Amino acid sequence: MLQTFSSTTYEEHSDVTPTDAGPWTLHEDRALPADPTTRPIAHEIYQAVKDLPIVSMHGHVPVEWFADDSPFPDPAQLLVVPDHYLLRMLVSQGETLPRLGVGPVPGAAGDAEAAESDPREIWRRFCAGWKHFRGTPTRFWMETELVEIFGVTQRPSAETADAIYDQIASVIADPSFRPRALLDRFGIEVIGTTDPAWSSLEHHDRLVADGERRVLPTFRPDPVYTIDSPTFAADVERTGAAAGVDVTSYASYLEALRVQRQRFKEAGGLATDHGHHLPDTTPLPADDAARLFDKAMLVARGGDPVTGAEAAAFSAHMLFQTAAMAAEDHLVMQIHPGVERGHASAETRVFGADKGYDIPFAIDFTRSLRPMLDAFGHHPGFRTIVFTIDEDTYSRELAPMAGVYPAMRLGAPWWFLDSPEAMRRFREAATETAGFSNMSGFVDDTRAFCSIPARHDLARRVDAGYLARLVAEHRLELDEAVDTAADLAYRLPLLSYAKA
Amino acid sequence: MLQTFSSTTYEEHSDVTPTDAGPWTLHEDRALPADPTTRPIAHEIYQAVKDLPIVSMHGHVPVEWFADDSPFPDPAQLLVVPDHYLLRMLVSQGETLPRLGVGPVPGAAGDAEAAESDPREIWRRFCAGWKHFRGTPTRFWMETELVEIFGVTQRPSAETADAIYDQIASVIADPSFRPRALLDRFGIEVIGTTDPAWSSLEHHDRLVADGERRVLPTFRPDPVYTIDSPTFAADVERTGAAAGVDVTSYASYLEALRVQRQRFKEAGGLATDHGHHLPDTTPLPADDAARLFDKAMLVARGGDPVTGAEAAAFSAHMLFQTAAMAAEDHLVMQIHPGVERGHASAETRVFGADKGYDIPFAIDFTRSLRPMLDAFGHHPGFRTIVFTIDEDTYSRELAPMAGVYPAMRLGAPWWFLDSPEAMRRFREAATETAGFSNMSGFVDDTRAFCSIPARHDLARRVDAGYLARLVAEHRLELDEAVDTAADLAYRLPLLSYAKA
Amino acid sequence: MLQTFSSTTYEEHSDVTPTDAGPWTLHEDRALPADPTTRPIAHEIYQAVKDLPIVSMHGHVPVEWFADDSPFPDPAQLLVVPDHYLLRMLVSQGETLPRLGVGPVPGAAGDAEAAESDPREIWRRFCAGWKHFRGTPTRFWMETELVEIFGVTQRPSAETADAIYDQIASVIADPSFRPRALLDRFGIEVIGTTDPAWSSLEHHDRLVADGERRVLPTFRPDPVYTIDSPTFAADVERTGAAAGVDVTSYASYLEALRVQRQRFKEAGGLATDHGHHLPDTTPLPADDAARLFDKAMLVARGGDPVTGAEAAAFSAHMLFQTAAMAAEDHLVMQIHPGVERGHASAETRVFGADKGYDIPFAIDFTRSLRPMLDAFGHHPGFRTIVFTIDEDTYSRELAPMAGVYPAMRLGAPWWFLDSPEAMRRFREAATETAGFSNMSGFVDDTRAFCSIPARHDLARRVDAGYLARLVAEHRLELDEAVDTAADLAYRLPLLSYAKA
Repeated sequence: MLQTFSSTTYEEHSDVTPTDAGPWTLHEDRALPADPTTRPIAHEIYQAVKDLPIVSMHGHVPVEWFADDSPFPDPAQLLVVPDHYLLRMLVSQGETLPRLGVGPVPGAAGDAEAAESDPREIWRRFCAGWKHFRGTPTRFWMETELVEIFGVTQRPSAETADAIYDQIASVIADPSFRPRALLDRFGIEVIGTTDPAWSSLEHHDRLVADGERRVLPTFRPDPVYTIDSPTFAADVERTGAAAGVDVTSYASYLEALRVQRQRFKEAGGLATDHGHHLPDTTPLPADDAARLFDKAMLVARGGDPVTGAEAAAFSAHMLFQTAAMAAEDHLVMQIHPGVERGHASAETRVFGADKGYDIPFAIDFTRSLRPMLDAFGHHPGFRTIVFTIDEDTYSRELAPMAGVYPAMRLGAPWWFLDSPEAMRRFREAATETAGFSNMSGFVDDTRAFCSIPARHDLARRVDAGYLARLVAEHRLELDEAVDTAADLAYRLPLLSYAKA
Repeated sequence: MLQTFSSTTYEEHSDVTPTDAGPWTLHEDRALPADPTTRPIAHEIYQAVKDLPIVSMHGHVPVEWFADDSPFPDPAQLLVVPDHYLLRMLVSQGETLPRLGVGPVPGAAGDAEAAESDPREIWRRFCAGWKHFRGTPTRFWMETELVEIFGVTQRPSAETADAIYDQIASVIADPSFRPRALLDRFGIEVIGTTDPAWSSLEHHDRLVADGERRVLPTFRPDPVYTIDSPTFAADVERTGAAAGVDVTSYASYLEALRVQRQRFKEAGGLATDHGHHLPDTTPLPADDAARLFDKAMLVARGGDPVTGAEAAAFSAHMLFQTAAMAAEDHLVMQIHPGVERGHASAETRVFGADKGYDIPFAIDFTRSLRPMLDAFGHHPGFRTIVFTIDEDTYSRELAPMAGVYPAMRLGAPWWFLDSPEAMRRFREAATETAGFSNMSGFVDDTRAFCSIPARHDLARRVDAGYLARLVAEHRLELDEAVDTAADLAYRLPLLSYAKA
Repeated sequence: MLQTFSSTTYEEHSDVTPTDAGPWTLHEDRALPADPTTRPIAHEIYQAVKDLPIVSMHGHVPVEWFADDSPFPDPAQLLVVPDHYLLRMLVSQGETLPRLGVGPVPGAAGDAEAAESDPREIWRRFCAGWKHFRGTPTRFWMETELVEIFGVTQRPSAETADAIYDQIASVIADPSFRPRALLDRFGIEVIGTTDPAWSSLEHHDRLVADGERRVLPTFRPDPVYTIDSPTFAADVERTGAAAGVDVTSYASYLEALRVQRQRFKEAGGLATDHGHHLPDTTPLPADDAARLFDKAMLVARGGDPVTGAEAAAFSAHMLFQTAAMAAEDHLVMQIHPGVERGHASAETRVFGADKGYDIPFAIDFTRSLRPMLDAFGHHPGFRTIVFTIDEDTYSRELAPMAGVYPAMRLGAPWWFLDSPEAMRRFREAATETAGFSNMSGFVDDTRAFCSIPARHDLARRVDAGYLARLVAEHRLELDEAVDTAADLAYRLPLLSYAKA
């Protein structure tokens, strides 16, 4: 029936404007406020901080990239395939993961298409979907990368895809585009990697042996805190093996964790990272925790399965235990809960995790974090940085807690909220109650290595805009605004992860 | 005791300013951003889209108005009595429903006042309360209607009420003010009506016979999904009768629904509409669903009552079933849950539903929609448009889901959120994660026929303002902004409801 | 390991800008919008209302201050020690409550530090932490107080602390700085105090005897509604004694409450105040309520303890009962639920309540308030003002209810939300659905007496800015904006608390 009204009319109106664009350049004041009073102030603040070094403590770039320092394969493998921000948007508009280079995981059931093997085809599909990124941070980051890193001068489109592909490929081929060289070029002073609890840290050792000390490991124990994971016992055993601890009990399990934390610390690690489903931190009596641990270790050998409630209780208990360990060894504890992972079950089974199907949900922090903060919130050795993707908790829960507990810092807006509008809302919602000093400063969180400078640049621009408004409204002096901009861009990230 | 401080002082300060106003005109740039950099850009974007046709797929104007094409009765019956936005605001400030022309429903218990029968009196009460609409979208819509449609030149007030009444009455009396003529005048390319599952669609048939194909039915089966409704069995039977299906079982009940959906489709219908209390979409085993259906059909004949939990489970099951049917017949499935209907029980009993006492509450979409999206979210024949009045879910839940599932579109801000500030917040909160392409574009939702052009106009202005800011901040090019404005105003609404 | 990257680089970048400031003055247009179109309109609106009298009906200044009219002790005791906004921020950055002048409560277990006894030391610590208040409302209020009330001309810092201290001390010493004189100077037309249900109101009587009728009592019965409080029975008995009612039963308990309410009313009281944990208003059958009351009265004499669920049920019941009493005696019922008090248990045990450890959590108003609004929401004698610190409920729940129930007014943004950005968000989120007329207007809530004018001034500025934007966007006429500004600043607060 659509035809009755659309066949003529839609055509008539489908071409309201030409899409001619002119040469593609980036405005120096992009993402700064438009209003003529505020813009020049923002410009001045931004100029003062734009070249500060990058502190990137929450990254997901594989450490092997830096250890091996190999060239990157091709534009699609560098910029499209590993970036679930891009994948999800293109899938939402009708592409499929295989056509974007993502194939089934080994052993996946079913008859999923094989991954596209031609990187140029993948790149063309991305460019053809460029319109769909309008208004998203991906658009901003990618624009910055294409223009500033790769020297692209045309907007992406089906027509320009090949030329852009060739341009990027030629840049990638240059030896100055190796990962370690990019650390210099990007001005990265320090970058954290994410490493499992059982890591031997051999890549990090190799980097240190080479004199490259900017790449620091981060201890991520989620799998060994998840007693209903099918690989729990195996992961615990691997962790014990790495630590040189024979894990036969809850006590030796904790000991193995402590040993590995120490090893991470010796390799330069400053932090641990915890992506729990819920933020609950209620401790269990030690006997109950030990009983659950024992039960979980037996599942693979035919024991009774662990229930969801048991797993949740153990997870909460281990957050509390982690805080106790952190208060001793001073590794900063990063928490970012509240995401339903693998929301599309079938796609997740076939294509694996981190493909854009992770959907946030509402959580409570006030009561969930209370046991931990009650016990360690004033401990001089403890620091926790709490990230969320549920912005409703900023003014209601997180800023009030960060604004009183000395051990807590409020993390930067995370994931979907790492975007101009959401960063602005974060500043507006959290600053008045938490102050700037109780925040982590800007922290990126990405697998897309080349997007790191663009992400920091965008954050510095948005913060300059927010601070400029405070100045323009006579709520802050300009010198204070510049000083605060430097705090947010550089000093706070540095100091937040250094709980000496 | 108030007198101790107010008797003199309040009087003294109660008249801070004169309320002299001058002749009443509408500024051509109203509701565009004020800042001098952004305003001209917004103006240009708005001018490019302001005259696009109106697509109004989610309306509640009675189809009889168009089928009969009768003149409207009087200003109060046209503009006040059917508009619960107006009623609620006046009631909150001391008016009563009867004094505004709303009488008790037939058979209502109690001694409620009878409805005011003099439309001029109703109109006077509305005009006397004009001040209370300051800052509300009703003010904007009504202003636009009064000036642009009715040629009013004075602000409403107790003093001007009669003159305005006469002016409107004279316009209404003109034959060019008949409903079908207004479709032309308003530039409405297509308008959806809301029709019960048991509708024979005779009015729609009559329109088609007259060559009027702009008025499309929408299938709204809520009552036959609500097994604890006192009229459930009767409504099911009516639906069976309309479908020509003898509903003796859950299977024939589903069959009747399928038949009626097909009939709606043949009459031009493009969508179904679902106003469930909760968004839960968890399916039941078919046997359980059948058992609940059978139980519900027996209540009227003395069977055990259906519990609230049973009704909720059946409702969730039927949302899932609806998605399954939609994947087959391609009717677009509109969902808008999360409202406590008839919050004031006594008033609702006496005066009926939809009188301003429907109050939203917090709901979860992430887990609620998961069963449906998991099963049909990538189905090529399925489309669901999800509306909400709980804006806290935009950035946290709805934009992340709409930004990955190809079957889902994020509906326009709905009801109380169909307002300048809320529309702007919607753009700011949802665009960065969902992109524009995963949105429904503007969709109005009103019984107030004459407000439709004003509602679309306001939305186009607000979107122009948002897009202009992106341009002014160098986050989007002007040609892209204009193209996107046309998408939001016209193309996306059209395409969202056309799941070919 | 921090040294590896920070030892040189951090130093290098830690001094991005000089912090030279020039003489400290306040800009006349501070906190008005920066954009050059909106600023002059905001200026005009603000000028029209800035000198209106202050109505401060929700205060926590001790009535003794006014009754005794004694001089204030010293700058630290006046401005730092009683203000938990200041305490919490300094504690979050490493200060301790004792170092800020807050000692353990009598009988507190443990070995807490004694309170700093030198007010000058406390003041120095506050000044040294001045940077941490950037971007907070405390900064704005304190700035206004220091410059406008105390004539300070230097920014606070470690270096300027002593000079500022001496300046403030000299002002405090002047007889014109006595509490009653300040009422004149601040332009306070009426100020509410908060008084327990068992108050004899002797201080208020003394004030009236002196002809000072601006200080009104507010009835706050929380402790006698909290049946699991350890002091419940004693507090009830005190209330009975004050009322001259022998409380031997639930019925006489209600009678004592009614008598005390009447006494408050006779002393000029206009309102009651209710800080319940949850907003539930579900009434109990009278027998159940009586049974719970009896049980609670026996706990101290060895009876079974009251459960949390019983306490919550009684609390809800008493909110409903309070509405019933209010409908009779017309005392306005203020509700502000949703705060987890004393979140840091150890600190609260040692240092007492109201030290910055009160953390909000998410609550539901729609279903919680329904029993009360269903019963009394249209009662001509009833008024309730609902405050919240959970801004997510503004557009979803509170504005929709305030926009239809004549008995309900939406309170001003409260506590952490009494800040420029949050006030602006409140206007933007609530106005479109509730209108201005269904709001309480500005209501401050503080123990910090000297901050009251600054708080009202800030609110008037923010409202002027919001209204100016409506004017600049041609959504409101200037005369209407000025009239509305006067409503919000003065008339609505006055009228909201006068349910004649």
